Amino acid sequence: MAYNLWKEDIAPALPAALAIEYFHNFSLMHDDIMDEAPLRRGKESVHTLFGNNSAILSGDAMLIQCFDLLLEAGRENNLGAQLCALMSKAALEICEGQQLDMDFEKLDSPTDIEYLEMIRQKTACLLGASMQMGALLAGATESDANLLYQFGEKMGLGFQIQDDYLDVFGDEKLTGKQKGGDILRGKKNFLYVTAFSQLKAGEREDFIEAYAMASRNQDTTEIYSIYEKLKIQEYTLGLQSKYLNEAMAELHKIDSVDVSQITALAEMLSLRNY
Amino acid sequence: MAYNLWKEDIAPALPAALAIEYFHNFSLMHDDIMDEAPLRRGKESVHTLFGNNSAILSGDAMLIQCFDLLLEAGRENNLGAQLCALMSKAALEICEGQQLDMDFEKLDSPTDIEYLEMIRQKTACLLGASMQMGALLAGATESDANLLYQFGEKMGLGFQIQDDYLDVFGDEKLTGKQKGGDILRGKKNFLYVTAFSQLKAGEREDFIEAYAMASRNQDTTEIYSIYEKLKIQEYTLGLQSKYLNEAMAELHKIDSVDVSQITALAEMLSLRNY
Repeated sequence: MAYNLWKEDIAPALPAALAIEYFHNFSLMHDDIMDEAPLRRGKESVHTLFGNNSAILSGDAMLIQCFDLLLEAGRENNLGAQLCALMSKAALEICEGQQLDMDFEKLDSPTDIEYLEMIRQKTACLLGASMQMGALLAGATESDANLLYQFGEKMGLGFQIQDDYLDVFGDEKLTGKQKGGDILRGKKNFLYVTAFSQLKAGEREDFIEAYAMASRNQDTTEIYSIYEKLKIQEYTLGLQSKYLNEAMAELHKIDSVDVSQITALAEMLSLRNY
Repeated sequence: MAYNLWKEDIAPALPAALAIEYFHNFSLMHDDIMDEAPLRRGKESVHTLFGNNSAILSGDAMLIQCFDLLLEAGRENNLGAQLCALMSKAALEICEGQQLDMDFEKLDSPTDIEYLEMIRQKTACLLGASMQMGALLAGATESDANLLYQFGEKMGLGFQIQDDYLDVFGDEKLTGKQKGGDILRGKKNFLYVTAFSQLKAGEREDFIEAYAMASRNQDTTEIYSIYEKLKIQEYTLGLQSKYLNEAMAELHKIDSVDVSQITALAEMLSLRNY
């Protein structure tokens, strides 16, 4: 879609789009090993089906092929090196984000600022980089490509916060996931770190204990009551909408092209309740 | 050294040399997880010290940084995309070689031809690609760079065969490894597949059984006697020297530069008994 802002025929953008898909799936494949996740998209994950060794090696091969596809995408316009440089920058951030994510699970007290930095690295920067690459391939100026990076990154932050929000406050008939699943699993999502950050020093110990208890007893009542007292729901929705607005502001700084389709997608994503 | 054939000051080649080191160490780090190897270079391997997750993720990051360093190396001469393309080609072959190596351990009967193709992919092509990249960075012609690729690949094949040879026929005082360690571990190295390939169909079952027995009983006598009957020692030394000669022939086709230092290194490597 970023490429399509400038060029009608999107065929030349496909190898780069495929490169992003390869990268994304490489990272999921390795993350699933690290998280010991048995399922991915409702099916058995690669390491479950073929073993850790094949999942490590297939992931490695897909990461390599990602760079190969970017070189192919950039050959005609001599953009291969630039695309690879943007990819490797984003890719390193994503590795760092994954490490932060694993570190967080061992901490009682990540702050909301640290959490946002973690999801920026782990998720949002890939959206930013893919928008930016699409723009550059289409011949956009560096400055417009950077605006699209900012748009993508802020959309990514909003998207990930919404994911955490829906897990706790979504309608399970629509999300298809158990309401409060993160609480029941003891996972420290954005709502947890926000509550933790807003509590006074003296109240934090009790909150940590209540969160652990919710998981032990499979009873989320106490946590929902704390979240209500702290207005976590409103705060989270407000932040998500702040990121959406900021993303839109970046997008609308690009005045030479018609951004209505991307605007519509962004609004649809931000209104999702599933 | 490849760069140094054309240019006196090797400083501009260092980021590319570092890229190869990053790649090589990434592949060792992931291989050690797959092989469950507790040690690397006499020290605890990364996954032993820091766990599989950190070893997977650090390896991923090093693979990404390899591409980043190649882009840096190629920036001045606009060679970044070409270096990355050569790297990704070699890197994919190396992944395929590692998969073949793992598959071989489950087979009774890999042929020597298949084994040579496996070590060509797993080991030799990285030597080839690094020689080629050094040459290209130094401004060598494509044709001279290709000759250095061939030289490196053939040296790599000879080196790996020699490794297997030394394991079985080396002097353990010099190699620092238990003589016949591969036999004792039941590892199907080049000598095993050569013996297997030279035996008649009716004798192969007995050989497989004897090899398994040697490992079970920790007694290599029978295998050494089979290797002696089949003249495996002479055949292996002959093949190693054939690869060295072929490598030298490629090297000496490059007539505009002084190859005496690389020649000396190649001869020293081929004479090593440790």
